[in-house]
Amino acid sequence: MPAPLVHRLRVRYAECDLQGVAFNAHYLNYFDTSMTELWRAAYGSYQAMLDRGVDMVLAEARVRFHRPARFDDELELGVVVIHLGRTSFRTNHTARLAGELVAEAELRHVLVDRRTAVKTPLPDWLRDGLAPWAVITDGPPQGP
Amino acid sequence: MPAPLVHRLRVRYAECDLQGVAFNAHYLNYFDTSMTELWRAAYGSYQAMLDRGVDMVLAEARVRFHRPARFDDELELGVVVIHLGRTSFRTNHTARLAGELVAEAELRHVLVDRRTAVKTPLPDWLRDGLAPWAVITDGPPQGP
Amino acid sequence: MPAPLVHRLRVRYAECDLQGVAFNAHYLNYFDTSMTELWRAAYGSYQAMLDRGVDMVLAEARVRFHRPARFDDELELGVVVIHLGRTSFRTNHTARLAGELVAEAELRHVLVDRRTAVKTPLPDWLRDGLAPWAVITDGPPQGP
Amino acid sequence: MPAPLVHRLRVRYAECDLQGVAFNAHYLNYFDTSMTELWRAAYGSYQAMLDRGVDMVLAEARVRFHRPARFDDELELGVVVIHLGRTSFRTNHTARLAGELVAEAELRHVLVDRRTAVKTPLPDWLRDGLAPWAVITDGPPQGP
Repeated sequence: MPAPLVHRLRVRYAECDLQGVAFNAHYLNYFDTSMTELWRAAYGSYQAMLDRGVDMVLAEARVRFHRPARFDDELELGVVVIHLGRTSFRTNHTARLAGELVAEAELRHVLVDRRTAVKTPLPDWLRDGLAPWAVITDGPPQGP
Repeated sequence: MPAPLVHRLRVRYAECDLQGVAFNAHYLNYFDTSMTELWRAAYGSYQAMLDRGVDMVLAEARVRFHRPARFDDELELGVVVIHLGRTSFRTNHTARLAGELVAEAELRHVLVDRRTAVKTPLPDWLRDGLAPWAVITDGPPQGP
Repeated sequence: MPAPLVHRLRVRYAECDLQGVAFNAHYLNYFDTSMTELWRAAYGSYQAMLDRGVDMVLAEARVRFHRPARFDDELELGVVVIHLGRTSFRTNHTARLAGELVAEAELRHVLVDRRTAVKTPLPDWLRDGLAPWAVITDGPPQGP
Repeated sequence: MPAPLVHRLRVRYAECDLQGVAFNAHYLNYFDTSMTELWRAAYGSYQAMLDRGVDMVLAEARVRFHRPARFDDELELGVVVIHLGRTSFRTNHTARLAGELVAEAELRHVLVDRRTAVKTPLPDWLRDGLAPWAVITDGPPQGP
């Protein structure tokens, strides 16, 4: 079972709210930086995917918040691919501090034609590129 | 069955990304403004809740994105309360444009003591205040 | 001397930082919404300018912070045009609470060709559209 | 003449706007991360300053935008201290890509008592800590 792709990100002052913790919406932004790093590891860059004529849009997100992160904390962000469908794929994300789980998310992205924004099947090069970080879960295909 | 509490919010230039649409993370921020408006309608203001010694933290979010919103679009944001638990509550959120569903979310907030940040039971005044927008769903209690 | 164009904007929870006040960077975003409203008043919308083949980019900003704004405060944002140059223009912005000055800014935008991003002279329709909010200051032309 | 304190920061997808470039307001946020790094280098952390009972607030910012930065660009952010006043100090900031200047800013922060938010004189430990990055400019004192 492959290890997640991990990178680190420091919580900025402006991202912390009146409760003294990183505001919830920023986690979708943090997990999006994990997608950027995944694309860099798999294809060289996010731009390399665009150059091949496809793009991805977020269709669904589920986030669970376990404990707060604070200003200047350095989050360890991990991502694995848990499902490769016909036109969409799912990733599982974690944010940790000193090994403790801060937040986790499951994202479902849809692949689209870059020019028309219409959904399009995952090409083989995209499947192959994600393979090193793919932990495909059991069970029947989950949705489109 | 009560109508959702609705307010309007215009998508800002800075909230739109390279795909020309409002970036996904901003929707958690948009739906948070709905919570602020719900608290205003129910208790006078969010501050009025803090003044009574409690606060709320987001424990879980599920968001589905149906179609994009663009710069200068005026979103119609709706919120209803779908579950009042012992120490947490759930809200359902919609973002619409001209009646069409743009995004929807289910949020679960936990009530906490403002000073200790430890979870605390929902007081009666809080339950009563939310009643006009509460569409309590059937079935057994969903979690804590 | 014409009155500024004014609109109102409520400070969001996520925009307030550990000091309990709206974080400084958000003011550039707030003043950008004033530009959007100015374009709506002058030309129908920002998009109407794009449709005529030009766009604007921020070249310089000067912001002074006088007193803090807090969560749920409703800022009164005002904008006037203080200089119309050959290829750029300057606006003066204010953010007020109950008449008291919270922050003020002077922005210099450059007009560019929408497709090439190269700076281009202000067309007459653009000058005419801004006239109702133009408080042209004395003195020699300020820069390009 | 001391070298600026430099750190690197990657432009996020969500920070880029409809023009395909990092939106202007984010630069104040980027330069704020430089202040965090300056405080880390000078005192161990920003928190170490708070622990000594003082905090800082931004009083004035001047930003010039020279060329755009794009998604996934890694900015080189530099900061030097250019003035240490009685109760305030000024810093000069640069954002570069491959040596080319993208944006520069001059910020003036005021030191305040952490509890009362009233401005307070710069203590010696604060002046001493900043000395390695202080390029004090000539001329009479600039403001308070």
